[in-house]
Amino acid sequence: MNKIKKYSYGICFLISIAINILLSIHLYVGGGEKNHDIISYKPSLTWSLKAAQEAEAVAAITCSGHGLAFLDGLVSDGRPVCECYSCYSGPDCSQLSPGCAANADGGDPIFLEPFWMEKAADSALVVPGWHRMSYKYADDTMMSTELESYIRKLHSIVGNAITEGRYMVFGIGSSQLLSAAVYALSSENSSSPSNVLASIPFYGMYKSQPMLFNSENFKYEGDTKSWQSNNSTSNMDVIEFVTSPNNPDGELKQSVLGGKTIYDHAYFWPHFTPILGPSDQDLMIFTLSKLTGHAGTRFGWAIVKDKDVYEKMINYINIADLGISKDTQLRALKLLKVAIEEDGKSLFQFAYNKMRDRWDRLTSVFAKSTRFSIQKIHPLHCKFFNETRLPSPAYAWVKCEREEDEDCSEVLEAGKIIGRSGSAFSANNRYTRLSLIKSQDDFELLLQRLTELVSLENGIMETM
Amino acid sequence: MNKIKKYSYGICFLISIAINILLSIHLYVGGGEKNHDIISYKPSLTWSLKAAQEAEAVAAITCSGHGLAFLDGLVSDGRPVCECYSCYSGPDCSQLSPGCAANADGGDPIFLEPFWMEKAADSALVVPGWHRMSYKYADDTMMSTELESYIRKLHSIVGNAITEGRYMVFGIGSSQLLSAAVYALSSENSSSPSNVLASIPFYGMYKSQPMLFNSENFKYEGDTKSWQSNNSTSNMDVIEFVTSPNNPDGELKQSVLGGKTIYDHAYFWPHFTPILGPSDQDLMIFTLSKLTGHAGTRFGWAIVKDKDVYEKMINYINIADLGISKDTQLRALKLLKVAIEEDGKSLFQFAYNKMRDRWDRLTSVFAKSTRFSIQKIHPLHCKFFNETRLPSPAYAWVKCEREEDEDCSEVLEAGKIIGRSGSAFSANNRYTRLSLIKSQDDFELLLQRLTELVSLENGIMETM
Repeated sequence: MNKIKKYSYGICFLISIAINILLSIHLYVGGGEKNHDIISYKPSLTWSLKAAQEAEAVAAITCSGHGLAFLDGLVSDGRPVCECYSCYSGPDCSQLSPGCAANADGGDPIFLEPFWMEKAADSALVVPGWHRMSYKYADDTMMSTELESYIRKLHSIVGNAITEGRYMVFGIGSSQLLSAAVYALSSENSSSPSNVLASIPFYGMYKSQPMLFNSENFKYEGDTKSWQSNNSTSNMDVIEFVTSPNNPDGELKQSVLGGKTIYDHAYFWPHFTPILGPSDQDLMIFTLSKLTGHAGTRFGWAIVKDKDVYEKMINYINIADLGISKDTQLRALKLLKVAIEEDGKSLFQFAYNKMRDRWDRLTSVFAKSTRFSIQKIHPLHCKFFNETRLPSPAYAWVKCEREEDEDCSEVLEAGKIIGRSGSAFSANNRYTRLSLIKSQDDFELLLQRLTELVSLENGIMETM
Repeated sequence: MNKIKKYSYGICFLISIAINILLSIHLYVGGGEKNHDIISYKPSLTWSLKAAQEAEAVAAITCSGHGLAFLDGLVSDGRPVCECYSCYSGPDCSQLSPGCAANADGGDPIFLEPFWMEKAADSALVVPGWHRMSYKYADDTMMSTELESYIRKLHSIVGNAITEGRYMVFGIGSSQLLSAAVYALSSENSSSPSNVLASIPFYGMYKSQPMLFNSENFKYEGDTKSWQSNNSTSNMDVIEFVTSPNNPDGELKQSVLGGKTIYDHAYFWPHFTPILGPSDQDLMIFTLSKLTGHAGTRFGWAIVKDKDVYEKMINYINIADLGISKDTQLRALKLLKVAIEEDGKSLFQFAYNKMRDRWDRLTSVFAKSTRFSIQKIHPLHCKFFNETRLPSPAYAWVKCEREEDEDCSEVLEAGKIIGRSGSAFSANNRYTRLSLIKSQDDFELLLQRLTELVSLENGIMETM
């Protein structure tokens, strides 16, 4: 063997050893991602690998930033197709429809989607096929104790609700908890049903649920103000919905009638409103939807002071549905673990910045208009951020100021903006709700259409 | 360089190359599992790795075969603890409580847990943090089109329901669909509510739901037979629940009153009953729980002939809950993809064998008894298995034959067996339902306790 041969042997060997080491590292700590806290796990995957690869392959499908592919999306050529945000189309969502209307209806909290993409590794969830097949958890309940403890932790970090010594009830979004709460608070004597009320403008569900269920135990009775003026007796059986911050207008509200009250705190998070202090009401309802943005997960919870009310709510949910999906609870747990990271600063700062930016830009558009106005917002001291801040509500509550603009939704629609009419909130149609929590694309288009509309008013054309 | 040195260099080099190749294979097709169809995927994981490792670490926790650790289980020393099946305890579930009663109450379908462990790779699910945050799917509905198409495929494979030209409604288990169906079929004129009925013995939910909701549109009226004898007019507004196969007794049933009927087909799968042919009813309800065993997932569906009824059911579910959890739907999709593998043969053969074995052993115990009897079962031709087979119902419907044994549950309880009393099915307490679909441990203990009870009857002691 000559020297060169010896040399190349040696080099090949060293290279081979080096490759060995590199491959081993790749295998044992995972390739190409931050994984500071996973090294303690056993590295090689068995049963979960295929599903992980499948999920990553779907996530890698690019939709031009104007859409997403999902694991359960429609399949074409063996893989899920891009699902485009409104106004975008094409196989990769790259085509913008030029005259497309800005859809600001609905309450889809897609503004938080980018946050969860940033937190991909921490928020991913792997569910084995045999996960939680039983109706019940080990403690014979239908609610995950771990999840409950994370919810309590979150409230204590945010400082928006007292949970010590209170009961908790899980529901299918806040939606189901609204009816469970009405049921639990309602009269058991069907000859005198409880009267369900709320203050205008209010969330349409407070009306549509009791109307649909048509129960002998409670009746939808409409607005608190007209109720007060028609009913002098103060000892009548009422159940009052108070949404605080309010949907649609973002106002912090209190009970008007002072009787049995359901506090809907769906929007009571630091990205929508300064947190003045913890809510200490008898019955408070929260939802994942407006906290982490996972509306599709359908998970909410109620915090309840009275044991009897708590038991009735649990009974209602168990008889209606035999409890809440264990998959939903597992997902909520994973998401809340991320939500409380850095004492909540990461999620809430991201969400607040996003909402603040949208409000700043929105405000400057409406500042140029006399035809349209939005609700006034005032700075308040937020104990969570320890700073005085303006609220940044989830919705703009738009008023058409001109006398002839009686149907504000119609006026906006002519300007290619779709909102939700005042009447959906039992309010005057001179008002319309515009969602500010949808995708960035949706918001940009909304702002563009609003700018066009306002410039019309100040420009050449006043005839519209 | 001497010959030996040269030699060992060469061998080291070859070994090193071989290790390279092995490591590369490991990396590129995944270590140590069947992965025939994943080679086409890109191999290296990024964001999903940490969650996959976490899930595998939890799955690797051993609980002596008498329990499981779950991702969302209570945590001790940084990792979830074993959750033991009934009668087992200890940190690794190895301790059997000697005098423990066999709990055969409830309908937990844990008998299928081992199937999903066998199918670990195919049934694992990876959910990215940003999965389906919206209330709706791309087609503006709250139901996954992919999932719906798999359900239709499944029914066509099994041959147990006509789905062509029918509408589908998803619900939170079959539970919610029961009330959605009653609502959709009920009178809109509250001065003459619809009468909700079923034939004894029947599932308790048919009574507890209408009683709880106390709607003006419908009233629970009890048993069809007593109704028939008290109401001569045939044109009264009735809604009849027909469970086929029946819960608790497994009988294939038909409508008695011939009016509006809700067919609860929760148990209409080849592992419980021979499939005589597809059900062709106006309103049929199915659930994942008794099909794949995932009761905790809370997913069911209705197949509906009439468009108006379908729309009312959808409306009910959307107003009650704003639709079904997207996570639940994603999980159901993954599980159904496995269920239809090998044209359903894999799942149904496993499930049937399990149930058949349990019935054979149960039957031989009851054959020795004159004190206790169970329902008679008769062979029928199953079109799915293309064979004449005995049914193997989910529950034994036990009758205490001795005149003095008026409360059969009490008698069984004295023998350390917990069942569900006849009265829970509006039947006589001389009957008790025993679940045969729980874990193998539960079944073994049940069989042991039954054997003890029957041997008492034939042996020394007749005084109990």
